[in-house]
Amino acid sequence: MTVLRVAVAQLPNRVGDLEGNAERIIEAMAWAEQEAQADVLVLPELVLTGYPLADLVLHREFVDDAEEALDRLTKLSGRMTTILSTIDRVPPQRSWDTRERDVSIAAKLLCDGEVRGCYHKVLLPIYDLFDEARNFAPGSRPNLVWRIGDVVVGVSICEDMWSPDGPPEAQSAAGAQILLVPNSSPFHRGKARSRLDLTRKVALRNGVPVVYVNFVGGQDDVVFDGGSIIVDGEGTLLARGAEFDEDRFGVDVPVPEARPIKGPLGNVHTRPTPHRAPPGAWNPRPPLDDLEAVWDALVMGVRDYTERNGFKGVALGLSGGIDSAVTAMVAADALGPEGVLAVAMPAPDTPYEARVDAEALARNLGIAFDTVPVDTPTTEADVPDEAEPLTKEDAAVRRERRYARARAVALSDIFDERGYLVLATSNKTHISVGAANLLGDLVGGFAPLKDCPKTLLYDLGRYRNSIAEVCPRRILDMQSSSQATLPEGLPSYEVLDEIVERYVEHSASLKDLIDAGFDPAVVTNVMRSIDDAERIRRYTPPGIKITSRAFDQDRRMPLPNSWHAHRRD
Amino acid sequence: MTVLRVAVAQLPNRVGDLEGNAERIIEAMAWAEQEAQADVLVLPELVLTGYPLADLVLHREFVDDAEEALDRLTKLSGRMTTILSTIDRVPPQRSWDTRERDVSIAAKLLCDGEVRGCYHKVLLPIYDLFDEARNFAPGSRPNLVWRIGDVVVGVSICEDMWSPDGPPEAQSAAGAQILLVPNSSPFHRGKARSRLDLTRKVALRNGVPVVYVNFVGGQDDVVFDGGSIIVDGEGTLLARGAEFDEDRFGVDVPVPEARPIKGPLGNVHTRPTPHRAPPGAWNPRPPLDDLEAVWDALVMGVRDYTERNGFKGVALGLSGGIDSAVTAMVAADALGPEGVLAVAMPAPDTPYEARVDAEALARNLGIAFDTVPVDTPTTEADVPDEAEPLTKEDAAVRRERRYARARAVALSDIFDERGYLVLATSNKTHISVGAANLLGDLVGGFAPLKDCPKTLLYDLGRYRNSIAEVCPRRILDMQSSSQATLPEGLPSYEVLDEIVERYVEHSASLKDLIDAGFDPAVVTNVMRSIDDAERIRRYTPPGIKITSRAFDQDRRMPLPNSWHAHRRD
Repeated sequence: MTVLRVAVAQLPNRVGDLEGNAERIIEAMAWAEQEAQADVLVLPELVLTGYPLADLVLHREFVDDAEEALDRLTKLSGRMTTILSTIDRVPPQRSWDTRERDVSIAAKLLCDGEVRGCYHKVLLPIYDLFDEARNFAPGSRPNLVWRIGDVVVGVSICEDMWSPDGPPEAQSAAGAQILLVPNSSPFHRGKARSRLDLTRKVALRNGVPVVYVNFVGGQDDVVFDGGSIIVDGEGTLLARGAEFDEDRFGVDVPVPEARPIKGPLGNVHTRPTPHRAPPGAWNPRPPLDDLEAVWDALVMGVRDYTERNGFKGVALGLSGGIDSAVTAMVAADALGPEGVLAVAMPAPDTPYEARVDAEALARNLGIAFDTVPVDTPTTEADVPDEAEPLTKEDAAVRRERRYARARAVALSDIFDERGYLVLATSNKTHISVGAANLLGDLVGGFAPLKDCPKTLLYDLGRYRNSIAEVCPRRILDMQSSSQATLPEGLPSYEVLDEIVERYVEHSASLKDLIDAGFDPAVVTNVMRSIDDAERIRRYTPPGIKITSRAFDQDRRMPLPNSWHAHRRD
Repeated sequence: MTVLRVAVAQLPNRVGDLEGNAERIIEAMAWAEQEAQADVLVLPELVLTGYPLADLVLHREFVDDAEEALDRLTKLSGRMTTILSTIDRVPPQRSWDTRERDVSIAAKLLCDGEVRGCYHKVLLPIYDLFDEARNFAPGSRPNLVWRIGDVVVGVSICEDMWSPDGPPEAQSAAGAQILLVPNSSPFHRGKARSRLDLTRKVALRNGVPVVYVNFVGGQDDVVFDGGSIIVDGEGTLLARGAEFDEDRFGVDVPVPEARPIKGPLGNVHTRPTPHRAPPGAWNPRPPLDDLEAVWDALVMGVRDYTERNGFKGVALGLSGGIDSAVTAMVAADALGPEGVLAVAMPAPDTPYEARVDAEALARNLGIAFDTVPVDTPTTEADVPDEAEPLTKEDAAVRRERRYARARAVALSDIFDERGYLVLATSNKTHISVGAANLLGDLVGGFAPLKDCPKTLLYDLGRYRNSIAEVCPRRILDMQSSSQATLPEGLPSYEVLDEIVERYVEHSASLKDLIDAGFDPAVVTNVMRSIDDAERIRRYTPPGIKITSRAFDQDRRMPLPNSWHAHRRD
């Protein structure tokens, strides 16, 4: 049986780092050609520029710089074919609107110092967090195939593969014996499973092996989780890359017999190594389970956001509650204990147990721990008498707000004076229903738990404790009594999180939710809270996407929006 | 010569207000049919649902509700044709990616209680602030035409018209004697001129009159400025609607002779009124000049954002500087003096003149004026000794920051306790280079001047004083001495604003700017400041777009972004 030796390099996603990316690619090319003795090296989508590029593509200089970097890499290519994805200037074209676009997402086939082939991504996603059709021109030749050694390959890119009848089908029909697919596929819960299902389906549908290569690393509010896979033409998993870590491996992929060529065929002239050793041992890892994956995503997201934005560490308020406890544990795992400063900011009515638990957690993690009480008389006098309220309000509510403000100010001072990135500790549930406080648990430059429902945080805490018991039990046991922090009229966190998931992630209607057994009055109340909080969500700090639909890029409602206000009256 | 009597209703843009919009449409239909005795009524794009809808379309209930509202309006249509734009369910289809979309932007032709025709928008913009291809399916029949009375008309929608060879050309070739175009076209400086140029070009290219109808009103961070226009087949302006105000008018538009029909023709069966009076007198207004238009945009933006989000008024800090002075004048014009609370928050080192000027401005505007000094000893002690900085810092800088924090806290208290929307007073120049302060001039729920360059603010102040002298001269005369508020190493505001405009609005390269005569070191410094401030821009409050490229929706850079960091090293 014919075999194509495929090398996969699951490199880190570093947006704009043309020099660093080029160095990592050169190193991978040398490894793949010399050590793995591969016929072809497959790298992630836009491996040279990083992903997503957003409006960076509008800067012509950046496109120029990327083209220069490609030239340099091309000259270094040898007998092996490198599938290198980057941005590519094309003749200006119009498609779905009147804007001319002249840059495409390309996969270049490099060999012997030359670009021997080029595929332009045909399908450009614009949904959820994706905005590719905004700045890129679509490719129009889905059925290109190339001969690499003895094997005819098809190359397509990420979204191309998710169509039931897309470029992979065109390439298979044109004679491809194997499909090579660079990807930039962000993490959310359950994504690894759907990628495997999809890759199997494409392989089975076309009767050819599929090589799916993904990025790894945190970029902005998404995390790329790696987990590259190779399946054979029967849909059997041949290899899986590490999740949430760089990885590389070479595999001898058996390909079906040559097929009649029915599409435009290029020839790359890869020369196979005559007598090569079997590919290096590859150590398959079982897939991560859900909580492991979420934890690793949070850790990677915090580490990469902090380091890549040039911060030497993070600071956060540690209250003795679950939100700040999970934030602290994630931060310590991400940056090491020396990169984290926890600040307890107790008020006079803060329970003794909370202070004890906060300090115990910090001690267990080995992170720096400061105490800044907000019970000094000064916080009562932040606003002098002249500005005293016109309306009467509950004194306790006002006092609580003053404490939150004083905490926000203290954390902001730490940011200014010590250069620590402040982590906001708020969670998705609170941000959904507007229970998060802009001058409180939302103060900070990054909100790691922004997409984590409250109930998940207890599971995450227990998961982390299962590795090493760092979180005091009392914090995890608070789950049943934590209801007090929600505005009146909202259900338990368990019910609330279910409604949030259905309404925010899956756009469930009121009727859907009533049909599912939820109390109509409760659902109406929750939906209204979520709708009303859209205004606040416009200026919350970025966080880490872990669900199928996070806020901001994934879901943006018009503001103001009368339908939300009136439809349930 | 054949004449088509066209009624134009430039209605307010109220997103999601299906009931209110339906009422306004019914009223316009009655006026157009009975008073204006028109053959056809043209309304703005998505007049029934409002624009933009963002992800509201993902809620099936909203689409259902819009369809119900259309049914009701259809039954009310009479002998006249109403061109009513709304969302429309279509068979699910894929186009530029793998997502199935089943809602289009439609123009329905209503007559005698029935939908007699339907056009689906073909070109769906996704650039700058537009995201239509995200959720809408494109139409595929650009060349539909309809007979309305004796005249064959073509109907297309907004972006369709901006193509050099789009639906209007197809309709003209198919026999259309006039082009009717509903629009949702947001304001920016110079936009009215480019709309008129375009409409003339389309009319001349096709030798037929063009009716261009726009929305009016502030929605989120954009303002729709109205200014609907009718030009004849020679490109002569026949009518122009009010700018920044509702308007309606009827015009007898002369149309060229009937052309051979070469496309699918529908018949609407509009019955002309046999003996009708000439259309009511229409009072053409000259176009607004640049400063008037910007002022009106800011006023409309503040008014609509405040009222539609349910606030009874706004509060802002009034310092005696130009930023807060312009914000206060805009707010007073938007909401009336009774809707504005100005709070002076002087520190011990605040110049006496600034206090005097702030109070004089408030008095001239007739707005409420409070003083909350931030010179109490408490502000020095906000953060107790335990959290004192590890590094030595200039005491003045720290004091200034403490004052800014105290002001932010005071304003936030006013929001919480009096229910006033807090207006942040920062401007585009400061937000560009990172000189805006998140816990200072960026605290608030809305930042009206977010897209206004600093130098423009003085022009705006002088413009407002030309109507009535409300702003103390000293505030306007500070222009030459205001440099002190910028970080070291940045050029004068005049130079800075020019670089910001070229780099942010037009993506100029370093080379472009050097070629234009700017000092390379200065340009490099400014570009770096703009790049570095992207992190902060992720969570600034919304503002009002007045330039061709604002921040946020119009321009989003990846974060972190190594190219920005390294390219100029």
